[in-house]
Formats: sequence, structure tokens, C-alpha cells
Amino acid sequence: MIPQPIICALRSSVTCWRQRSVLETALRLKALGFRTVCFRSTFAPGPVTSMEEILTRVVIPLPTYETREKSPPPPESNSVEFMHFYKSLEKEEKSQLLAKLSLDFGVDHKGVSELAGKLSDTQQRDLATILQVEDRLRYSLTPRYKQLLNHISRVEGGVKFLVDLRADLLEMISSKTNDSPHIRDLNGTLKSLLSEWFSVGLLRLERITWQSPCEILQKISQYEAVHPVRNWTDIKRRVGPYRRCYAFTHAAMPGEPLVVLHVALTESISDNIQSIVREFVTLDSEEDVNKVYTAVFYSISSTQAGLQGVDLGNVLIKRVVRELQSEFPHMSQFSSLSPIPGFSSWLLGLLSQHRKEGRMELLTDHEWREVADITNTTSTNTLDALRKLISTGEWTRSERLVHVLEGPFMRLCAWYLYGEKRRGYALNPVANFHLQNGATMWRLNWHADTSPRGVANSCGIMVNYRYFLQDTLSNSAAYMHNKSITATEQVLGLVSQFKKNSKL
Amino acid sequence: MIPQPIICALRSSVTCWRQRSVLETALRLKALGFRTVCFRSTFAPGPVTSMEEILTRVVIPLPTYETREKSPPPPESNSVEFMHFYKSLEKEEKSQLLAKLSLDFGVDHKGVSELAGKLSDTQQRDLATILQVEDRLRYSLTPRYKQLLNHISRVEGGVKFLVDLRADLLEMISSKTNDSPHIRDLNGTLKSLLSEWFSVGLLRLERITWQSPCEILQKISQYEAVHPVRNWTDIKRRVGPYRRCYAFTHAAMPGEPLVVLHVALTESISDNIQSIVREFVTLDSEEDVNKVYTAVFYSISSTQAGLQGVDLGNVLIKRVVRELQSEFPHMSQFSSLSPIPGFSSWLLGLLSQHRKEGRMELLTDHEWREVADITNTTSTNTLDALRKLISTGEWTRSERLVHVLEGPFMRLCAWYLYGEKRRGYALNPVANFHLQNGATMWRLNWHADTSPRGVANSCGIMVNYRYFLQDTLSNSAAYMHNKSITATEQVLGLVSQFKKNSKL
Amino acid sequence: MIPQPIICALRSSVTCWRQRSVLETALRLKALGFRTVCFRSTFAPGPVTSMEEILTRVVIPLPTYETREKSPPPPESNSVEFMHFYKSLEKEEKSQLLAKLSLDFGVDHKGVSELAGKLSDTQQRDLATILQVEDRLRYSLTPRYKQLLNHISRVEGGVKFLVDLRADLLEMISSKTNDSPHIRDLNGTLKSLLSEWFSVGLLRLERITWQSPCEILQKISQYEAVHPVRNWTDIKRRVGPYRRCYAFTHAAMPGEPLVVLHVALTESISDNIQSIVREFVTLDSEEDVNKVYTAVFYSISSTQAGLQGVDLGNVLIKRVVRELQSEFPHMSQFSSLSPIPGFSSWLLGLLSQHRKEGRMELLTDHEWREVADITNTTSTNTLDALRKLISTGEWTRSERLVHVLEGPFMRLCAWYLYGEKRRGYALNPVANFHLQNGATMWRLNWHADTSPRGVANSCGIMVNYRYFLQDTLSNSAAYMHNKSITATEQVLGLVSQFKKNSKL
Amino acid sequence: MIPQPIICALRSSVTCWRQRSVLETALRLKALGFRTVCFRSTFAPGPVTSMEEILTRVVIPLPTYETREKSPPPPESNSVEFMHFYKSLEKEEKSQLLAKLSLDFGVDHKGVSELAGKLSDTQQRDLATILQVEDRLRYSLTPRYKQLLNHISRVEGGVKFLVDLRADLLEMISSKTNDSPHIRDLNGTLKSLLSEWFSVGLLRLERITWQSPCEILQKISQYEAVHPVRNWTDIKRRVGPYRRCYAFTHAAMPGEPLVVLHVALTESISDNIQSIVREFVTLDSEEDVNKVYTAVFYSISSTQAGLQGVDLGNVLIKRVVRELQSEFPHMSQFSSLSPIPGFSSWLLGLLSQHRKEGRMELLTDHEWREVADITNTTSTNTLDALRKLISTGEWTRSERLVHVLEGPFMRLCAWYLYGEKRRGYALNPVANFHLQNGATMWRLNWHADTSPRGVANSCGIMVNYRYFLQDTLSNSAAYMHNKSITATEQVLGLVSQFKKNSKL
Repeated sequence: MIPQPIICALRSSVTCWRQRSVLETALRLKALGFRTVCFRSTFAPGPVTSMEEILTRVVIPLPTYETREKSPPPPESNSVEFMHFYKSLEKEEKSQLLAKLSLDFGVDHKGVSELAGKLSDTQQRDLATILQVEDRLRYSLTPRYKQLLNHISRVEGGVKFLVDLRADLLEMISSKTNDSPHIRDLNGTLKSLLSEWFSVGLLRLERITWQSPCEILQKISQYEAVHPVRNWTDIKRRVGPYRRCYAFTHAAMPGEPLVVLHVALTESISDNIQSIVREFVTLDSEEDVNKVYTAVFYSISSTQAGLQGVDLGNVLIKRVVRELQSEFPHMSQFSSLSPIPGFSSWLLGLLSQHRKEGRMELLTDHEWREVADITNTTSTNTLDALRKLISTGEWTRSERLVHVLEGPFMRLCAWYLYGEKRRGYALNPVANFHLQNGATMWRLNWHADTSPRGVANSCGIMVNYRYFLQDTLSNSAAYMHNKSITATEQVLGLVSQFKKNSKL
Repeated sequence: MIPQPIICALRSSVTCWRQRSVLETALRLKALGFRTVCFRSTFAPGPVTSMEEILTRVVIPLPTYETREKSPPPPESNSVEFMHFYKSLEKEEKSQLLAKLSLDFGVDHKGVSELAGKLSDTQQRDLATILQVEDRLRYSLTPRYKQLLNHISRVEGGVKFLVDLRADLLEMISSKTNDSPHIRDLNGTLKSLLSEWFSVGLLRLERITWQSPCEILQKISQYEAVHPVRNWTDIKRRVGPYRRCYAFTHAAMPGEPLVVLHVALTESISDNIQSIVREFVTLDSEEDVNKVYTAVFYSISSTQAGLQGVDLGNVLIKRVVRELQSEFPHMSQFSSLSPIPGFSSWLLGLLSQHRKEGRMELLTDHEWREVADITNTTSTNTLDALRKLISTGEWTRSERLVHVLEGPFMRLCAWYLYGEKRRGYALNPVANFHLQNGATMWRLNWHADTSPRGVANSCGIMVNYRYFLQDTLSNSAAYMHNKSITATEQVLGLVSQFKKNSKL
Repeated sequence: MIPQPIICALRSSVTCWRQRSVLETALRLKALGFRTVCFRSTFAPGPVTSMEEILTRVVIPLPTYETREKSPPPPESNSVEFMHFYKSLEKEEKSQLLAKLSLDFGVDHKGVSELAGKLSDTQQRDLATILQVEDRLRYSLTPRYKQLLNHISRVEGGVKFLVDLRADLLEMISSKTNDSPHIRDLNGTLKSLLSEWFSVGLLRLERITWQSPCEILQKISQYEAVHPVRNWTDIKRRVGPYRRCYAFTHAAMPGEPLVVLHVALTESISDNIQSIVREFVTLDSEEDVNKVYTAVFYSISSTQAGLQGVDLGNVLIKRVVRELQSEFPHMSQFSSLSPIPGFSSWLLGLLSQHRKEGRMELLTDHEWREVADITNTTSTNTLDALRKLISTGEWTRSERLVHVLEGPFMRLCAWYLYGEKRRGYALNPVANFHLQNGATMWRLNWHADTSPRGVANSCGIMVNYRYFLQDTLSNSAAYMHNKSITATEQVLGLVSQFKKNSKL
Repeated sequence: MIPQPIICALRSSVTCWRQRSVLETALRLKALGFRTVCFRSTFAPGPVTSMEEILTRVVIPLPTYETREKSPPPPESNSVEFMHFYKSLEKEEKSQLLAKLSLDFGVDHKGVSELAGKLSDTQQRDLATILQVEDRLRYSLTPRYKQLLNHISRVEGGVKFLVDLRADLLEMISSKTNDSPHIRDLNGTLKSLLSEWFSVGLLRLERITWQSPCEILQKISQYEAVHPVRNWTDIKRRVGPYRRCYAFTHAAMPGEPLVVLHVALTESISDNIQSIVREFVTLDSEEDVNKVYTAVFYSISSTQAGLQGVDLGNVLIKRVVRELQSEFPHMSQFSSLSPIPGFSSWLLGLLSQHRKEGRMELLTDHEWREVADITNTTSTNTLDALRKLISTGEWTRSERLVHVLEGPFMRLCAWYLYGEKRRGYALNPVANFHLQNGATMWRLNWHADTSPRGVANSCGIMVNYRYFLQDTLSNSAAYMHNKSITATEQVLGLVSQFKKNSKL
């Protein structure tokens, strides 16, 4: 039992903490086996003071290099207190807290500098001394807050807390709320810790079926961003016959899928997503192994914003390939059927720009004429009409337009995927992901996603990134080192048509 | 299928690899989904060359700071190859390999030194620059082999391999086979990686029962070092009624208990181990909750030499305390019943030394006379007789001797535990372990382990380290920072008797 | 592989079998390890012939009494063939088949009669002879088809097949399609077999949670007949905090809940179903043990029509009570909150009858006047107006009517539950179920189910059957032997009001 | 809580009950949710009275035919009380109790006789009436104790209790302690109930591995009667690579293997047991699928004496065959390697008999001469010398004798297996088991079990019963109906040699 006076003391500090969470913390600590819970009441005055006060208490100084192995870990209540305090804050306060944490509880720059000086002096000395100074230097480069992060990870729910905290950090940085070098440093430190904890050996591959816990299936439905799950019949089909659904989970975050891969088992590589997601498949039918030669990865979703940059998707695909090979030894084709987010808006942007510049080379003269004819416009406003048709998706209602536009849209899309770059790598994030994994840009598919969403995103075009297993390592290296993209003749043909037209 | 020529190529390189492991590797790689396995035959000439050759190929250079996020991981076969190569080596070759690895594939000292110089120059500059240089410096302090260790951990069986490799390292260091600064650095790097992977959030507490897999129970029997398990009836009792057995396991090493804690559930704190380990307890009797007020930790064993210094035992005790509290809410006493390894040999050493120096103060004059009387010796050779009796354990056969020696042995033992130090901490490793955890040195028990082993190790004395839950944190801090030991009046009384006698 | 000729032979018999199922059977048999599948082609001519033909082949004659232990079981394919044949039939054909089975493959009446004659002669003889003849008689009373049923139960999916077959039988009997004595005999035989297989020792109690397989939760949603589950949020709440959901499953029908009990954990006995089923409960809130004193069974559903008469619900309630007591040792109240299906239609029937007979005593004069007043009717058509209001449920829209009708509806309902009988037992099936279990008719609740369904079924009234654990055995015996109902003063008071009014 | 007075009352009845079990019962009943436990103290006087008293109370009368569906089950405490009472009895008392139960609580012979009379009169009447009277007759043939057995099966641990009770019954019958017709009737009733509960659909096939619970592996070691398990290394090998161990378990007896089958996976059909049980096999080696073409069933053990006559072994073999076929699709040979218990003693008996009768045809003249020569005996005492050598097993020490005796022992053994009968079926129980299952007597193996046990039982000979899957059904039927044995030429050749010699 928590003695009454202490509960009272807790209650008195509600100016800075939300009352609920104080009580929760107290109960929690009690559950953890602490008989007495003692918060110093001095952190009551106001949020700012309390932040400093709480950080000073919770983020204990690093032990000296000599005593680093002889220091007992701080009490678990430190971590629990920090977690509850952080959760009780508003968004802006969180940002303040993290700013303070990263600025005031980071590296001891003076100490580092001194050791660095020492090291540059030790050039002449023996290797043993150099190694020792290096090790001291390495230790002194540890930010003080790293210790806190480490301890939090050991508390129940701690890893999930840190994943979510990193999601907050990333949001601050990308929204420019706070992208100071210190915040970036904190982010870097946290990312490298998460990379350790989510290293492959600790991940568990789970096949999700209709017998999996409802909790997981509901989460997978919610997380599915690529082709949204409409209802439970829908999700039942996606884990039913001729489908596979795999997820990585982690011992420290039970029941939480981290990255999810949906696979269709087909005879040949699919060129249309509706045949996979919407097609009527009798749910109770049994799989005929003799119809399964191909695995089509039609959706891969990361569920934890805070694990950005921690490479899970790539590894999941590789593990799933192995899994499928052992289930279907004669399976010979592995390919994605991927969306092309951003193509439509890139296309609209291009059209705007060309309009301003008075250029018309995106379509051939013949194509412009046909569009003008169908849309009943004069050459001066055909481009405007086309832009409007694209942005509304109405071009898909005219069979003639669909026919005329297939050529130009396909070659434009090929260029978008193959030719548009950011820092030398593919601009399109899905392309970049699969190319990093070593896939080949294999086939663009017209009329592949006819849902409103598919038309709006990419004029209905989808693309297969194919995994030739014996080539992925070399492809990956070629892409990552030399930024060179492996593509098939179909894709390269479309690209060169585009180039010819655009006089590139 | 592996094409025949490649198998042949593999076979041709057997000069350095054991043939078996080459084939195994090949089959293994095939199982991992690699179609073609290609070892360069150039590493054939001889073991020394091949070591260099293999290390150069397998321990790839660190990416530059700029490209560190854009570098694809090396193929998994690198890690598998290194693992198989290492396992195929003889002990001495292993030592050579690790020496080479730590010396030639460590930190780039020149690069570090340059950056360090840069940092000592940047004193005046802005914080953002300092942070950036610090981050570069931190990166440059990464030994090249760390990357290899990281990749190995991701392969199936990799973590276990590294744990075993560290056991080899520790053995090299302690046996002075190889304790160069570089080997120590490699050991430090590996230890800090293992600490991450075996952090508490990733450990799973398992209660071991007679329903647990045979594989685990057999291992627990083998690992039990404190009170050896004699047969399967014995182990069955240790997981039966009024007993608990808990172990930590780890997701990356399934089926392998890492640290094992045996607990007896009793009414009061036990003063005798035979009542726990040998006592006849009907195996099918049901526990009576109303007889359970105390948990006696009577054995804790670490099973993995390679996890030395990674703090698991302390955490296991704390988790088990919580577990027991939730099962037995009225449980109020937690204590170890611990062996005192080394007491007898310390005592024999002391006697030898006193003999040389002609000192007799270990026993009182009265005690000496009694011993002389019983052993029928003259005062000149009583000490020798006593030494012999202790080293053979024969003193326990004489009731009179047992009676006479209780006083001196108990106070000597108290001093051994409380007063003998190594770098300021308790010399006895078991004492040091529990004191670090925050336990109190609670009671010395005469006649507590009457097995030959118990008599040989500690003259049959055992000690209780008691865990007062509300004090463990402060005790632990007091011990680790100030080296002060919390002990009861019984222990302190014995210690002061010893001091008085010895004129300390 | 099934040799081609045999497949052909199979195909040629499709006149009577559906082609699909022939192939299925063949594949199935192959899967069962049969190398060659051989159907005699003679059963091809037509359905009627084939029925006889198939039954003659499949329902093998009983061995003689002497050889009954020495007879090998018929091949498993017999059972599989019968199952596939039966499933391939249309409803009417099924009825024919079962009629034939029960008539021509039942008891050998002549044999029985002879043995019976022998037995009545043996009066004088010794007990050993009598016992022997009795045993022969018992054996001869076994219908030949019982052996088939037994063998079917041993095939995978066989038990479920028989449960469904019995559902068909019950439907034939209740719809008078076929209720010959032979069909009833078949039904009786099957029921007693099912009772054996679904005996309590073989049932497994499962607590259903949000972590249970989706498959089970979906089935439980479908089966919930009492308060239909509207969506997945709804079912999530019914397995969430302050709720329990238990089901019996059976080893021979994995993944199939047989009977499902929904429980609400409350402070006191609920008088309203919406507070349980619709109330907003934050799904993530944790249960406070100190708010749980009562278990309210608010829904119990049998899922298998074919298990009618096999007592599962009663046993489930008892098991759940034990389970809850061990989870909440201080739980002290157990009660249902039950619907009263049939009350409204019984009431409407009564009104019609009274109208014909010109009787008005269902309501008091005062009540009639108030109703007339509110409905603005003359005394002659008030009764008609009332009937219409009840049958449309519109009376609930008038606060005044609701107020006026509470008295009469409550006493009528009490009578319906307590006084209306069928063969001496409560007419209302839900009442009969709980009274058989030994519950007390504890409280009628006005305004307890305000859903349209609740108003339509029972004018919104619900009833609590309360389980006083120490009395259930005696209550049950009193009800089943003496047909006497235990009820509280509230119920008895309402009943006597009704009687007084009705001059009963 | 059980009120003190009742505990006292319980204690007062210890004259007939063992005190422990009374208390146990009380606690047990309390655990079952009974608030008050009330034993009538009148059954105290003495064991005999108490038996009657307790049976009268516990074995309640059958409901009448009319009310049989309306009768509540008796309280569970009845069953629990009976179980505890029975367990508290000495062996002899148990026999008394069962005698009383079977005699006084069996069938109502008078009622049966009346109904039988009625039935023989109803010859002329309509079928409906006949069916009805038959059903009544069937019901009246139910022994009153059957109801008790049924209820016991529903209590936790009840099924196991009944299995053990039947083992007691069988022991009484076979030891002639009590083999009255009534006891046989009770045994028959219990057997048919057990057959229902242990019907195949309710059995679970478990593969036992080194990961299985220790509890199960220990039991399997204990139960292994064919080739005793010597230690845990031994059992580890029997569940390791190239071995399989399967067991049936039952939902109502968790953790209890009912029948256990050990299989060796080999290239060809083994002719020697030591190569399977003793051979050094590296335990960690992995199975090479390409070396597995044959499954050798080298041990099958039933573990529950009380399930005698309930056919589990046959079904287990068939299930295991299917299991193995799906794991090793190219597996083509299935065979036992079986002991021949009883051959040596049969042979010794035969020799004694021939000696008395002065016949010498068991061996040829030539063989006798060789034996005489080797044993250095005159023709008159050669037979005695041979008998002695066989009974001591010493003949195996002389290579020459082993060589000479191979011929005669093999043909004698062939005859023993093939020609010696009991009621027309094979005398040897192992032969009878496999022949019933439809196996072929395939090969006799000389020098197949060279352990002392093997020599003592069957002169070291073992036999393969081979399962040709396509023939087992017809073989089984031929054996069970016509008592004809399928055997190979090797066996038949040996048999005809025997016949020729013996002039049969």
C-alpha cells in the first residue's frame, strides 16, 4: 500500500503533471514492487522548472570512464517517471522537453575536446596508449541521454515508447518545428539504438491467417495503406487461399506487427491489382499447388513511423522469399505489383510548367490533335483541358481518350520512374525501395489499378519490380554505389521514346 | 542444385578448410536460397594466407561517413562463411585469427587522429560544427570488425556464435594466451554489442516445470554448478512442489537458458541446503499456500561464459521476486542460501602463512589447546595437524572437533566474506554478486552444507544474503560507490571477534 | 496417382452422384493412403437403386454375437463414401435416404423377438444364464446402422457430419416431412451417441478474448442470436474489460464453439440490457476488481442444431461460475438477464381470444378507461386499438401509455413465465432452461430491452433468473420432479395480482 | 470455508475411510464450489455397512422410461465421493465393492423379463408398437451402475479413474479372484463405454521429440516394455534423427500417452534390433531424406491395462503410416521388427514333451549327431543337454552350435508363429496383433536380438510383419474371418521343412 501522505504529495504536484498520470505512476510503481513512492515536491512550481528539475533527476550523469562498469543502474522508477511525464505533455511541451534534453544532456564537449587534443598529441606513442585514449574518447562521445534511452528500453513498454518518441522527433524535424543540430543528434542516437534492438536476429516472422488473433488482424487492416481494407470479408480474403500475409514482430513489442507484406500466389506475374484485391475467390476453396508458380508482392506497409530508416521491409521480403520457396519448391517468379504514388501530380506539374514555357513536346503532334479532337478543343486550350481531365480523372470515361493517352502516359511514367532523380536515386519512393533491394524495373502495366485512388495517383498505371534472386545482390550494389538502375527492354523502350520526343 | 563444378571447386580448397565444413557451408548456403556458391579458389595455398584472404574478403571496409546509410549490407554468405571457417579451426588457429582480426581490421587510427586534431581546433567554432565533427569522430572510432559482428548477429545461429566466440576471447585473455590491447578492444566491442542484444526488454522469463521440454531440463541439469543434479528424480524434485525454477531465455537463442535461478518456498529462511536439495518430499503432494512465507534462492547459475559482465543474474532475481509476489501476495521474506567457494583454501593459505611466520592468533590459546588435546599433538605440530584435517575434511568425523572449531571457523569465515577485498570490493564472488544487487549479509550458518563438496569448499558453512526489497537500491549504491557492506549484528559480531583475536 | 481407368469409372457413375463429389472422394481417398479406389459401377442406373445399392454396401451387417469382437472394422472409405454421397443429395433425397436407412437397416425384429421369448422362459433358470441372454438381447437390439454412425465418427470431420445430419433429422421430424417411428428411432440412437461424445469430460472450456483467432470470433458473432452483434467494435467490446465470453469446444470439432456464454461483470444485478450491450465503455480501460461483485449472464447460445437435447448450456454455466469464482473470490451474485421470447405473441393471442369471448379482465376497469382515454377510443374498440399498438410497438411512443401499461404488462408477463405450462413445465423455453438448471425466477424488469426487437418480443420486459449456488441442486430437482418453480416475492406478487384480476 | 462441525463429522467416519481421503474429499468438494459438505455419519459403523450405505446413496436408481430425459444429473459430489471411497480401499475391499456393485446395482431382471414377455406377445402388432417396446426393453437392459460410470467420466480425472478401475476388474477376472457373470457384465459395460470415449475421432496423434515435456518422455521411458530404455541418452536417441516416436493422447487424460509406437527410418527393412536401439548414431546429425525409404516399427506398447480390447494400436499404426507418407512421399516399405515372446518356453516345453514320449523328430538325425558331437554327449542325453543350453542361453557361446542350430530353430520358430493356434488364431500375441492389422508374415531373422533378453525369449530370432498398404484390408478380413495367414515363401518354406521333419 502507498502511504496516504505520499499520495497527497503526489496530488500536490499536479500543476505540472496531469493528475491521472501521477496516480497511474504511483500505482504502476507499486505494481513494480516499490513499497514507497517518493517524488520530491519541489518540482511543483511550473512546467518549465519542472522540466529541468525532472530531467536533472532522471538523466543521471554518466559514470566516469573508470567506474563505468561498477555503477548500478538507476532505479527503474526513473524511466517510468520520465515516460509518464512525457506522455502527459502537450505536443509543444514535448518539443520543449526534447530540445532541452538534447541540448543540456548531450555530450560533454569540453571533455571530448581535451581527449581529442591528447589523441592528436599521442601520434608518436605506442599503439596500446593510442587504443586506450581512443576508447576513452569513444566513451566521452556518448551523450548523457543515451543512458536514459537505454534504461527506458528495459522497462515494460519502453521500446514501444521510444519508437513513438522517435516518431515525434521525426515529425518535429520534418515540420521544421525543431530541427536544431542537437535534435538531429538525439534522433541519430535513438535511430542507432533502435537499429540494434530491431536487428534481424531478434525479429520473428509470423504468417498471419484467419486463425491469428483478432487483435493482429484488426491492426493489419488498419495499417494497410496501399490498398485499403474495406471490411472483414476483405481481410479474410487477403489471408485466405492463394494469398499470404507475413509480418515481422518483435519480442519487446508483442502483438504489434512492424512491417506487413501481402502476397498473391498466381500462375504468372499479375498486371492488374483488382484481380488480386477485388476478385471473387471462393473463400473455402483449397489451393492447388500446381497453379502456383509466382509470388506477387502487392502491398508492403511499415506500421511504425518511429522505425524510419531501420531496414525491415527489405529483410522481410527476403525472408518471405525463402519461406515461399520452402513451401513451393517449384516457385520460380517473384515480383511486386507496385503503385506509383506521385506520378499524376508530377505529370500535372510538368504540364503546368510546359504551358508556361509554351512547350508541347510531352505528346506528339498527332497525339495532341487526337486529344483536341476528342475534347473538342482548339490547340490553344487542349493542354488546359487535358490537365483538367487528368486532375478529375474524367479522361477514363472516354474510351477513345484512354486509347490515345496510353502511349504518352506510359512513356511519361517510365521516365518518371527511371529518369527522375533525387540526389541521384529514384525520386519515386517505392521505386527507390525496390531498387535498393536489388529488384529489376520489369514492366509497366496500363489499366492496372482502375480504382479512383489508382487513377488519381498514377493514371491507373502500376509497375512490377521483379526479383531475380541470383541478381539482387549485384543489382543492389550497382544501384546504391553507382546509382544505376536495372530495367527491362519494355521500360527502356518507353524511356527512349520519351527521350526522343522530349529531345533529351 | 549446386552445379557439379562448384562442388568440385569447393573440394579443391580443403587444404585450409576442413572438408566437412566446406560441404556444410555449401549446403547451408543453398538452403538459404543461393543458387550458386562461389568461393575463390585462391585462398587455397595455406592456412596463414587463407586467414588474411578470408578476412580481407569478409570484413568489408566501412563505408565513408557520407555513404554510411546508402550502403547495402554485405551478402549473408559472408557471415556464414566466416562462422564456418572459424568453427573449422583448431584452438591455436582461432587465437591467430582473432589476433589478426583485432589488429588489422580495427579502427583507422590515422583517420581518428586527423578528426581529433580538427576537433581540438574547432574550439572556437559554433556548436553545430562541433556536433558534426563529433559525430564524424564517433563514426571513425568504429572498428571495422564491428560491422562483421553486427552482420553475424543477423544470421540464424549468429548470436549464439558470438556468445561462444566471446567465451573464447575471455579464455585467451585470462589464460594469457593473448591479451594484447587489441584483443581487449575486440572483447570490449563484443561485450557492448552483447549488452545491447541481451538488454532486459528482450529477455523472456520462463518458469521451468516438469512439463517443460526435456531439452531445457537436461540443459538445466548440466548447467547446475552450485548443487549438482544427480539424476532425473533429483531434477524432477527441483521443479516440483515447494520449488520454483526460473530462467531467462532470448529470442535469438531459442531453447537455451541463459541464467537459471532455483528457489525453495519455505516457512522461514533455510539454514541448511540438504533440507532443500536432498530432503524427501513426496513429489505429488500439493503446495499449501499457507506454508509459504519465504523464498530461498538456493542456486543461481549463468550458463554462457561469453556473457560475462552482461548483467543478467541481478535482473533475474528482481523479476522472480515480482513473479513470486504476485503468486504469493503474503510472501514477506526473500533470501539466498549461498555457498562460500574459496573459504577453505583461503583458510588453508592463511594457516600456511601463519605457520611460516610463527603466528598463532587465528585460534585462541584455549582453542589451540583443545585441538591439540583432541588431535593428540604437541603444540608445535597442532597447526599442521589442523591443516591436514581441514584439507581432508576429516575434522568433521570428530564431534568434539566440530564443536571446538565452530567458533573459530565461523568468525574466520565472517571475516573472509566481510573483510577480505579485491580492489575494495568483496573478494568472494558470490558475496560480491549479492552485495552489488543490494542484499544484506544476513546470517552465517554452521553445518549448512554437510556434503563432501560443502565441507571441502567452506567447512560446511553457508550464508544467507537477504533481500529487503525497500533497501536494495540504497544498499547497492552504497556498496558500489562507497564499497560499504550492509550486514547484520550476527555477522558484525563474528567479524569483531575475529578482529579482537587477530589484534586487527 | 489414381490410374486413369478408375477415374473414368468414377466419372461414369455421375447419374447418381454429383460429379464434383466423386472426384473429391477419389482425391480424398487417395489422400487417406488408398492406392486404388474402386467403386462398383453397378450403382449407376438411378438414384433410387443407387441408394439401396450404396446402403447395402456401406451399412455392413452386424457381426454375430459370438464374433463381435473378432470383426475388423470396415474400411474407412465406407464412411467417407457415405458422407460424400449424403452431402451430394438434395434435401428430399436426403429424407428418402434416411427413411430407407432407418427402416431397412435397423433392428432385426425377428431375432429380438426370439431372444425375448427365450428370456421370458428363462425365469426359473440361474442368474448366469439370465445375464447371458440379456446380453445377447441387448446386442440384438442394436440397430445395424449404429455401426455405421460409429465408424463415421472416427473419420476426420465425421463427428461434425453427424451433428449436421441430426440437425436434418430434427428438421424432418418437426416439419413433419418424415416423423415415422423409425426416423424417431434413428434420431434417438444418434442422440445417445452424441451424448456420449459430447460428455463433459471431453469438452474444453475456452475463454474468448480479442486475442482469440479471428475465425472463432467471427463465428461467435454469427451465432449470437440473443442480442445480435452489429459490427467488430461491438464484438470487441463483448470480449473486452468487464465482459467475459466463454465457449465449449470439442476435440473432434476444432475451431467450432458449441455453446457460448456472454457475461457482464457488474456491481449489482443489471435490470437493463442496453447498459451492457450498448453502453459506451472505453475499450482500453482496465478492470477494477473492486467494482466486480456480480456476474450477469446476458446471452447464451447453442450453435449446433444437431446437439438439441445434449445438455451443454447447463454445464457451461456451472463451469463458468467456478471459473469466475476462482478469478474473483469475492464475487457473490450470479444471475441471468434473459429475454422473454414469445410473450408479446402470447399476449396478442390472449387478447384475440378474450375479444372473441367478450372478456375484459386482462386489464382492470380503471386501466381500460385510461387506455381508452389515451387512445381516444370507445370502450368497444379499445381492445382492438391496444392489440394494434402492441403489434406495431407504437405504444412505447406515448409516455402516458407506457406508464399505464406497466402494471398490467408486468403481471401478465409474470403469469406467462410462471403460470403458463407445457406438459407441466414452463412454456417459455428460456425460463424452462434456467429453471432446469436450478435458478430462481428472481425479478421482472420493466423497460429492460428498449430495442425494437425487445419491444416486439416481450414489450421491453426482461427477467433475471438468479443462481443461488447452494440451492441450485435442490431447485433443479424440485422443478424436474415436482414441476415446482422457485420464485421471489416480486414475481409471486405479480402472479397473484394477475390471478386476482383474472379470477383464477 | 467448511464449517468446523462438518470437518469434525468427517473425521468421525474414519473407521471406514482413510482419514486423508476424507479430508481430501472435503477440500476437493469445496474447490468445486460446494459451500457445505455433508456426509451422513451413519455410514461409520464398519466397512461392510458403509459399502452398502455408500452404494445405495451414490448409485441412484434409474429414472423411469418416461422421465429419463427430465431427470437432473445427480450432484457431482456423488461421483467424487465414490472415487475417493474406492481409492481408499485395500485390494480385497475393492473386489468386494465391485462384486456388490455388479450384483445389486445391475439390471432389473424382473422388469426386463416382463417387457420381454410383452415383446414376444406383440408379434402380430404394428411396427410402431414393436419399435416402442424395443426401445423400452433396450432402456430396461441398462444396468443401474452404468449411470454412475457415466457421471464419473464427467468429473475431472474421472476417465482415468475408470480406466484404472477396469484394470482392477481385468486383474480380478484373470486371477480368478472374482470372475462371476456379474463382474464380467460390469467389465463388458465399462469396456463398451471406454470404446466410445476412446473412439478414434477423439484421439490426438502426438509426435514425441526431445522438445516434448519431460513428463511425457519419462512416462514413455517407463512404459517401453519391448526394448527397455536404459537411460536418458537412450531415450534421447529414440526421439532423435532417423527415429520417430508417436503416441495417442486423449483430451480427457492430458499428458498421458495411451499407446506408443517407435519407428526407425532406414534404407531397407532391418533384420537386427541392436542396429536400431544400440547403434552409435551421432545425436546431432541431420537426417538425409535420401536415405529414408523404409519405416521399421520396432516397438509398440499399450500403456493402460484398463484399455484392453479397445483397439488403439492398429489405428495408431495406420495414422503413423499416413503421417510418414506425407513427410516422406517416396517412402515405400513399412514393416515391423517384432519380438517373439514365448518361443523359447514353447520350444523347451516341446522338448520336454518329446523326451517323455521318446520322440526325436524336432531335429534331423544329422543335426542331433552334430549337437551330440559338440556337446560331447551320448545320444541318450543330448536332448537334455540341449534343453539346458537353451534355458541358460549358453548355446550362443559356441559358434559351432549357433551354426548347427540355426536350421532347426528357424523352422521351429516359423511353425510356432504360423502353425500354433489358440481358438484358430495365432497363439503368439504379437503375431496375432499384426495379422489382425492385415500385415504379412514376411521374414524370420536369425541373430536379430542378441541381447540376453532376446536370447532368453526367442533364441535371438525376430520377425518382420510387413504392411503392404494395398493388401492390409483384405489380409485382415481373411485372417479374422477365415483365420488364414498371409506369409512369404521364406516363412512358408521353413514351415514346410518343419512339417516334413515332424511328419505332420
